[in-house]
Amino acid sequence: MKEFFKVTTIEAVLALRQGFACAGTERVGIEQALGRILAAELLAPGDIPGFDRSTVDGYAVRAASTYGASEGAPAYLAVVGAVEMGRPPADTVGPGQAARIATGGMLPPGTDSVVMVEHAGAIDAATIEVYRSLAPGQHVVARDEDAAQGQTLLSAGIRLRPQELGLLSACGATQVNVFAQPRVGIISTGDEIVPVEVAPQPGQVRDVNAHTLAALVRQGGGAAVLYGIVPDRYETLLSVCRQALAQNDMVLVSGGSSVGTRDLTVDVLAALDQSRILVHGVSISPGKPTILAQCGTKPFWGLPGHVTSAMVVFMVLVRPFLAHLAGWTNDAPVRVPARLSRNVASAQGRVDFVRVRLTHQAGQAGQILAEPILGASGLIRTMVAADGLIAIDLNSEGLEQGAPVEVMLF
Amino acid sequence: MKEFFKVTTIEAVLALRQGFACAGTERVGIEQALGRILAAELLAPGDIPGFDRSTVDGYAVRAASTYGASEGAPAYLAVVGAVEMGRPPADTVGPGQAARIATGGMLPPGTDSVVMVEHAGAIDAATIEVYRSLAPGQHVVARDEDAAQGQTLLSAGIRLRPQELGLLSACGATQVNVFAQPRVGIISTGDEIVPVEVAPQPGQVRDVNAHTLAALVRQGGGAAVLYGIVPDRYETLLSVCRQALAQNDMVLVSGGSSVGTRDLTVDVLAALDQSRILVHGVSISPGKPTILAQCGTKPFWGLPGHVTSAMVVFMVLVRPFLAHLAGWTNDAPVRVPARLSRNVASAQGRVDFVRVRLTHQAGQAGQILAEPILGASGLIRTMVAADGLIAIDLNSEGLEQGAPVEVMLF
Repeated sequence: MKEFFKVTTIEAVLALRQGFACAGTERVGIEQALGRILAAELLAPGDIPGFDRSTVDGYAVRAASTYGASEGAPAYLAVVGAVEMGRPPADTVGPGQAARIATGGMLPPGTDSVVMVEHAGAIDAATIEVYRSLAPGQHVVARDEDAAQGQTLLSAGIRLRPQELGLLSACGATQVNVFAQPRVGIISTGDEIVPVEVAPQPGQVRDVNAHTLAALVRQGGGAAVLYGIVPDRYETLLSVCRQALAQNDMVLVSGGSSVGTRDLTVDVLAALDQSRILVHGVSISPGKPTILAQCGTKPFWGLPGHVTSAMVVFMVLVRPFLAHLAGWTNDAPVRVPARLSRNVASAQGRVDFVRVRLTHQAGQAGQILAEPILGASGLIRTMVAADGLIAIDLNSEGLEQGAPVEVMLF
Repeated sequence: MKEFFKVTTIEAVLALRQGFACAGTERVGIEQALGRILAAELLAPGDIPGFDRSTVDGYAVRAASTYGASEGAPAYLAVVGAVEMGRPPADTVGPGQAARIATGGMLPPGTDSVVMVEHAGAIDAATIEVYRSLAPGQHVVARDEDAAQGQTLLSAGIRLRPQELGLLSACGATQVNVFAQPRVGIISTGDEIVPVEVAPQPGQVRDVNAHTLAALVRQGGGAAVLYGIVPDRYETLLSVCRQALAQNDMVLVSGGSSVGTRDLTVDVLAALDQSRILVHGVSISPGKPTILAQCGTKPFWGLPGHVTSAMVVFMVLVRPFLAHLAGWTNDAPVRVPARLSRNVASAQGRVDFVRVRLTHQAGQAGQILAEPILGASGLIRTMVAADGLIAIDLNSEGLEQGAPVEVMLF
């Protein structure tokens, strides 16, 4: 029986990402760009908003015209016009004068600030009194306050959220340069595995991993390509692995959980063209029997058969590789601080990943409790009950109730 | 000038969701179901895994055959066969006997536990010695341990993550009953707004809201339908609003920020068929001038013109409505506990939403710092710099540096 003689740490596995390149770039319409990774930095093509703009409804004035004004001693100004929305005001507003302006309107020449309508009163159709003294720039967004021409607004490598799409819109971008989504081939193996649509006979189980991994790939910014179930036969598995490798940027094989299937996977990975086994066993639990090979320029993973183990390995190891291939540089997810609800034991020499459910503690703002989910690691139900994972360190024998933990959300 | 005379609280606005129904259901393939909302509870169609299953590589035995076994006094068992993966073992294994079994294999009749291969030694081809005493059920997943036939596995109203798709796979579901994605019409208005592809002239700004809101709708589980920019003319706006209302489950109109545009929006919303203005002003900042009308069975929102205000209103008010229309019942997002990096002032009588950037504090597990982002509320750049929002309560005059806060992530 083969043993895992050279177990690799998480950090050492992640460092191997640098040996792989990202998947290329493409242009997509802005309406398809949500969640995609920006491939080129965004420079402001001009000043934004591009003109001095009122932030209130009121009167555009020269601030000096209001100096010393108060409720008791208002300043009297002549209303010489009104700013039309969306048009540049032509006439200069001089000292002692004002022009009506709405929120978002462009300040007329000669003005530098806006009196809020609440701080002014109409004396007659052509005259207002102003009760407050203004400073230059008050209630105005300067022409380059959101962005100055040539300024770097977005860096390459970020994932686009709604607000980044808003900023791209403000810059006139209807098309966006993004990294191509890495294609990830998914192969299930194991003689006991049957397709989802088949009623399993005694001894058989349905292929749970394929759709779970495909969804994780999609969530992580990749495109999943399913290759179905391959029986535990060397030539067949090798042939499907070769095909998947040719058609994708990364491949995951999983499904069989027996040591025989695992040995077969190693042999097949080692036999692929230009292949080198980089990792054979990782110091994590669950997920120790993980294999990583480099096949030419592409990573090829042998994942544990148990779906929960495969999910943990995906989240901890495969997802960062996927992010790397996708060109995503700010991919570190927020880890939610919480307190452990009870003691959890752990073995030294490996990082233990424990599934937890989160509960907000009533009446205690900023206190979240992480409750470990019990159950054998093969049970998908335990993942369904969980909100995320906590890691218990290599050198720890466990954590006590109340210990601070950081939760990686699913 | 019109004023907002009856400002509504956040809680009162959210309570109005109950007056609207969700958008119907449909069946989709499991490969399209990630992120969709389950419309019918999932019952286990049978036991899962459906047979007693080994969790290790080793020997299936009757536990009683190993009672009292130790390194010094091993139990000797006769190996009578091997379990083939994916097939039901035919032969009964009796007392004093064992059958080879791999992880995931089905226990043969007569056995109730599995000796790990590490805890046994081969004496000859037909005999092993066992160094440990087993308990019945040890290293076995019982036939109904992941799910018992008829058990409720998933409730309707949950959003499907990778692990729920795995559980659906385990139950043989290739199609899933999900709620239809609500269609949300998006209309921009304001005479100063020009399409993204147009170079704005002085006084004009590009339509930033349309793509930002469309992305928020997609993120929130809806389908966005864009209606372009409508000028500030009553008949034109009324006609486009009517069309959007007929073609969608909810409509958002936004873009113009002047009080004139806001007044026009109220007049148009009030003039729609079977329309009733439910909310005209909300006690939040930014976002006070928010309007909500019920038009027949559909919600119709008038959102503030500033994109940052519109985003806050979307996150705090519109998204929960969208979730309700989408049938999504467990939609409360995790709020990340953090400490405020500096003092923040706030006005009483309204809930202030402050944009913050999060930083993990080096060396302090479970401590996240929330740093407020400064800048006028109209600046989209401030949303790009932020990771989320914190709320400062109606009755608070502000929060001090170090105060615990809960961050709604973007």
